[in-house]
Amino acid sequence: MARGTAVDIPTFVRIKPGALDRLGIYAARHRHRRVAMIVSEGLPAAIVERAEHSLRAEGAERIDRIDAGAASFEAASALFARLPTACDAVVGLGGGKALDVAKYVAFLAGRPMYAVPSSLSNDGFCSPQSSLTLGGARRSLTARLPFAVVVDTAVCLGAPVVLWWSGVGDLAAKVTAVRDWKLSYHASGEPVDDFAALLSDATVSQFLARPTRDDEGMRLLGTALMLNGIAMAVCGSSRPASGSEHLISHALDAISSRPRLHGLQVGVATYLVSRLQGQGTDRIAEAFDRTGFWDGIRADPFSRAEWLEAVRLAPSINPGRYTVLSTRDCVGEVAGMIDGDPALRGCFEE
Amino acid sequence: MARGTAVDIPTFVRIKPGALDRLGIYAARHRHRRVAMIVSEGLPAAIVERAEHSLRAEGAERIDRIDAGAASFEAASALFARLPTACDAVVGLGGGKALDVAKYVAFLAGRPMYAVPSSLSNDGFCSPQSSLTLGGARRSLTARLPFAVVVDTAVCLGAPVVLWWSGVGDLAAKVTAVRDWKLSYHASGEPVDDFAALLSDATVSQFLARPTRDDEGMRLLGTALMLNGIAMAVCGSSRPASGSEHLISHALDAISSRPRLHGLQVGVATYLVSRLQGQGTDRIAEAFDRTGFWDGIRADPFSRAEWLEAVRLAPSINPGRYTVLSTRDCVGEVAGMIDGDPALRGCFEE
Amino acid sequence: MARGTAVDIPTFVRIKPGALDRLGIYAARHRHRRVAMIVSEGLPAAIVERAEHSLRAEGAERIDRIDAGAASFEAASALFARLPTACDAVVGLGGGKALDVAKYVAFLAGRPMYAVPSSLSNDGFCSPQSSLTLGGARRSLTARLPFAVVVDTAVCLGAPVVLWWSGVGDLAAKVTAVRDWKLSYHASGEPVDDFAALLSDATVSQFLARPTRDDEGMRLLGTALMLNGIAMAVCGSSRPASGSEHLISHALDAISSRPRLHGLQVGVATYLVSRLQGQGTDRIAEAFDRTGFWDGIRADPFSRAEWLEAVRLAPSINPGRYTVLSTRDCVGEVAGMIDGDPALRGCFEE
Amino acid sequence: MARGTAVDIPTFVRIKPGALDRLGIYAARHRHRRVAMIVSEGLPAAIVERAEHSLRAEGAERIDRIDAGAASFEAASALFARLPTACDAVVGLGGGKALDVAKYVAFLAGRPMYAVPSSLSNDGFCSPQSSLTLGGARRSLTARLPFAVVVDTAVCLGAPVVLWWSGVGDLAAKVTAVRDWKLSYHASGEPVDDFAALLSDATVSQFLARPTRDDEGMRLLGTALMLNGIAMAVCGSSRPASGSEHLISHALDAISSRPRLHGLQVGVATYLVSRLQGQGTDRIAEAFDRTGFWDGIRADPFSRAEWLEAVRLAPSINPGRYTVLSTRDCVGEVAGMIDGDPALRGCFEE
Repeated sequence: MARGTAVDIPTFVRIKPGALDRLGIYAARHRHRRVAMIVSEGLPAAIVERAEHSLRAEGAERIDRIDAGAASFEAASALFARLPTACDAVVGLGGGKALDVAKYVAFLAGRPMYAVPSSLSNDGFCSPQSSLTLGGARRSLTARLPFAVVVDTAVCLGAPVVLWWSGVGDLAAKVTAVRDWKLSYHASGEPVDDFAALLSDATVSQFLARPTRDDEGMRLLGTALMLNGIAMAVCGSSRPASGSEHLISHALDAISSRPRLHGLQVGVATYLVSRLQGQGTDRIAEAFDRTGFWDGIRADPFSRAEWLEAVRLAPSINPGRYTVLSTRDCVGEVAGMIDGDPALRGCFEE
Repeated sequence: MARGTAVDIPTFVRIKPGALDRLGIYAARHRHRRVAMIVSEGLPAAIVERAEHSLRAEGAERIDRIDAGAASFEAASALFARLPTACDAVVGLGGGKALDVAKYVAFLAGRPMYAVPSSLSNDGFCSPQSSLTLGGARRSLTARLPFAVVVDTAVCLGAPVVLWWSGVGDLAAKVTAVRDWKLSYHASGEPVDDFAALLSDATVSQFLARPTRDDEGMRLLGTALMLNGIAMAVCGSSRPASGSEHLISHALDAISSRPRLHGLQVGVATYLVSRLQGQGTDRIAEAFDRTGFWDGIRADPFSRAEWLEAVRLAPSINPGRYTVLSTRDCVGEVAGMIDGDPALRGCFEE
Repeated sequence: MARGTAVDIPTFVRIKPGALDRLGIYAARHRHRRVAMIVSEGLPAAIVERAEHSLRAEGAERIDRIDAGAASFEAASALFARLPTACDAVVGLGGGKALDVAKYVAFLAGRPMYAVPSSLSNDGFCSPQSSLTLGGARRSLTARLPFAVVVDTAVCLGAPVVLWWSGVGDLAAKVTAVRDWKLSYHASGEPVDDFAALLSDATVSQFLARPTRDDEGMRLLGTALMLNGIAMAVCGSSRPASGSEHLISHALDAISSRPRLHGLQVGVATYLVSRLQGQGTDRIAEAFDRTGFWDGIRADPFSRAEWLEAVRLAPSINPGRYTVLSTRDCVGEVAGMIDGDPALRGCFEE
Repeated sequence: MARGTAVDIPTFVRIKPGALDRLGIYAARHRHRRVAMIVSEGLPAAIVERAEHSLRAEGAERIDRIDAGAASFEAASALFARLPTACDAVVGLGGGKALDVAKYVAFLAGRPMYAVPSSLSNDGFCSPQSSLTLGGARRSLTARLPFAVVVDTAVCLGAPVVLWWSGVGDLAAKVTAVRDWKLSYHASGEPVDDFAALLSDATVSQFLARPTRDDEGMRLLGTALMLNGIAMAVCGSSRPASGSEHLISHALDAISSRPRLHGLQVGVATYLVSRLQGQGTDRIAEAFDRTGFWDGIRADPFSRAEWLEAVRLAPSINPGRYTVLSTRDCVGEVAGMIDGDPALRGCFEE
């Protein structure tokens, strides 16, 4: 018998302006009547109210509004313990942390999850993992892809621009991540899943070719980040989305006196790593120029010393992951770039 | 229990120069030792020999070389009846017809299929259907996605440029097909699978942004056509790949004194339909300009009369498929375009 | 990621008296409105009419009644070619041949299939293959499990008793088939799928412990044969259902001047093979005693000479299948049993 | 497209004497080199050592032996937090609690799980849930089917006979559970999954027809309990395994001064409920007679008052689950049985 390969995808996807106000329609269509809504602390009340109003208007029998709290395994477990048993679905509404928590609560409860991001600052809203702390250490925990992805592009456009830059940075990382994967194949024979790599690559390109902050641009960014989550699910690995640039960012999280947004760190690391890899730099730089990404960095520059330390530490963050940083000691090269590359002027300070 | 949605994908994918010469390695890796190779009539002997040589070099125990013959259900059934029982895999090597036949033989035999296109003239090499005649009428028959997609971009670059233009035309069609799908949703409530539509859209964009005839361009075209096949499998419908532009092409196949390559017909129809739909025309025109697609058409112009007849007949080809052609009588508009649109100058004759 | 193993099962199952008259309810529940009904030639008109009446009463829009014709690939292909395109489901109603044909037509058409056996004479109604001739030779062709299994036990009770005996014989074969599988494991290392073997074994036991011809007994027989079909699907092999006893029956089909019902041949071969294997004989003999199976054989005895020839030929029917017949030349032993075993008295003639 | 229904099953199953000593072979075959073994407190050291020895003999790189601790979500979470990241598989070895904990740790870690029960006291070793306390209350938490089921029937025979009686009692419950399911269908239209019900029924029958405490009997009991776990996974509900008899047992767990083994409570409740349902009583009684189940109960009789209270409370334990207890107030009837049924003599005391 010729068995094929099957991959999971979200059962339902909507990426368009006004999707938030149709959340109730989407839930009702799938007969999800009793909904637990896990929301980001500090999310504008208007957004939460629109979601609730939409659910109520379509006959939701019960809506539990829950504060996401800390993005930790412990907090998510506590929310799970308090989740009403009669709950048809879990909605995660807000930023990355709320979605990670909601995804995990839904995983524990065996319930379908609606990912409703209020900004597109990273690719977590449609990945099969949850990024949570466990015993104080950040971990990428096994969870499940969301049942539904509902991105209201107008809502995302209303979020602070720095969150968009973060999403842009996290998306650009796919270019260097796939390259690192291929380096690993040549160095160690680690198999590359071409399907996942091509899917990852295709989606990034679409946005990079039109990196604008409007409804259409937000749709492309959302699609690209979502398909990247699928690419990870396809190959059962974060390889298509995460390479040396993520190792550097993880190292920064560990040592920095004030870590910045995930995608801002990752984006700058992506630029640096692309130079170490010797390819893709122009494409990334152009996207960062056109989106104003650099301005976002310069408004709150990074610490040069912390970055060099992070580059030094990065290979030890995940010793099993071969990347360009495994090929040689790169600290000196990176120092040279920070000091001399005109594109990076103003992005770092002593 | 929260069940997700699973979609089929090829288990193995390689799109790169020289992939043909590694076919044996790929087959051996999956323990496919006895291989039936179904090849296009007229395929250059050198290509067939490279495939056979590669298989033999990796220890294939037996290679049956079979002429694909006519792309009909009857011929494919006859090949199936003669297929050796001890056959681990079926390789389809060559043009669209050979691949359609091989895909169908593999489906009947319950064997994994390797799709090895020698050109990228349409999206059939990675779709879950086979386009075959049945009792003389062209049908899209249920089959299965290939187990493996092996695209040697250098081989495809060596194929006549008109086949590439055909692939470009078939890819451009996804723009109007998705638009027709959305029109149908608004008119009749037919549900649009956003995931499939976004996937289709993303892949087209990547190529349209860089429509070059080189290794990289061929990789993008191959990826886009492949992901489009997946998009069809995702939603269980040809909607993401086939709209009114395909209906016009099917009508031409039925009435034309000399039908042209599928993608040439489809491509020109796509341009016309995009004008009827009122969007996407610039993007399509630019890609056709940059690729020289128009030159390919002008070298062997279409019949104006046949096209107007085809536009008239198209809605009746598949009455259940709502498209822009269902919204009004479009023959007059199309006549106006053929006669007046500068882009189409020289593409039609009386 | 920890991926599990998934197996196909019928989506819908009903085994009970009166199920035939509820066929329309079952079809309507799954929104199958346009139904092609493939029926056995010679099936009592009353049965066909009950099915049609039930479908019409529940609002079937269209019912195509099709004579199953010959159980050949060629005939099934022709039926497929004539199948209305707008067909939501294919119903197979009647004996094994009609079901094999219907299953194959549904497979070709990519449509869900309802298996509605009018007797339980073998395990074909819920297997993933179709037993059809191809170019005149009997083959077990790749198809798909039925979407629905609808067994009206009262209808099956109304079928000739010899068909029931045939089903009993085919079920008993699972005992020797599983034993042959284990012999092959010890001799050649061919892996045994314990899950499939245990499932096969469990279901046989339930019937053998209560082998009566009443509603309850028919329910047990139907369940056992169905789960055996699933067991084959689980391991992707006919091993849990078919061993040396089936090889002997296949040999008889090839050489006998007048082959008998599949399950009658298989049942007697099962008894003989259990003696060659040295286990299970009592259990089988008891079931055959209690069901009157032997009487059915004695009413139309087999040819001693043909059987000895069949035992001689059996190992060459499927040379890759190791069974007890591969361990030694068994013709002499079988001759001794035929001539001397009191249980077989009157079952063979010169 | 005709999509079928797929169900999860264990990828690997072995039920036979000596399976424990082959655990290392099974793990090595699946390339599970680094194994975390979660064992019951108080499990005989010899059993743990045999497992470890077998793993080491086959080249396990690392074996972490972990005490299962309390069967709570909190304890399982803590074990998960301490689980080595480089862990290929989780083995649960011992009684039901250790297996529930191991199953849950494996679920959280996204790792394959080997269920290696040292006794067959209930059906938890192959179910898709874990029975754990959460915040002090017993819950049936979403988990995954084990990857592998390895039952050493000789080890299980060496366990105290009372554990076997418990398994017999839990298995007998399937008879009344399926009956309750059908009652619910007639009363409220709750759909019965016939496939799951037939599978459940088939497996129970096989054991009840041969309820002996020997290798073969243990194999049948293990198979039956395993297939019952699958039946639950098939229909996504505990309905095929758990009805009013389980509600009574859950109520006893809540109110009894000294709850007994799950299967002892469930078994006696099954007998009582079968009388309330008016069918199946003889079959259950015979199995309990032949296995000595009643003797096990009489050796440590239940409290009459607690049981009557439990019967009163049972319907409120899971108000959504319609059972025979929902049809009328059954306390008086049960009191009459306890006082007057000869089979129950000595099973209860004041």
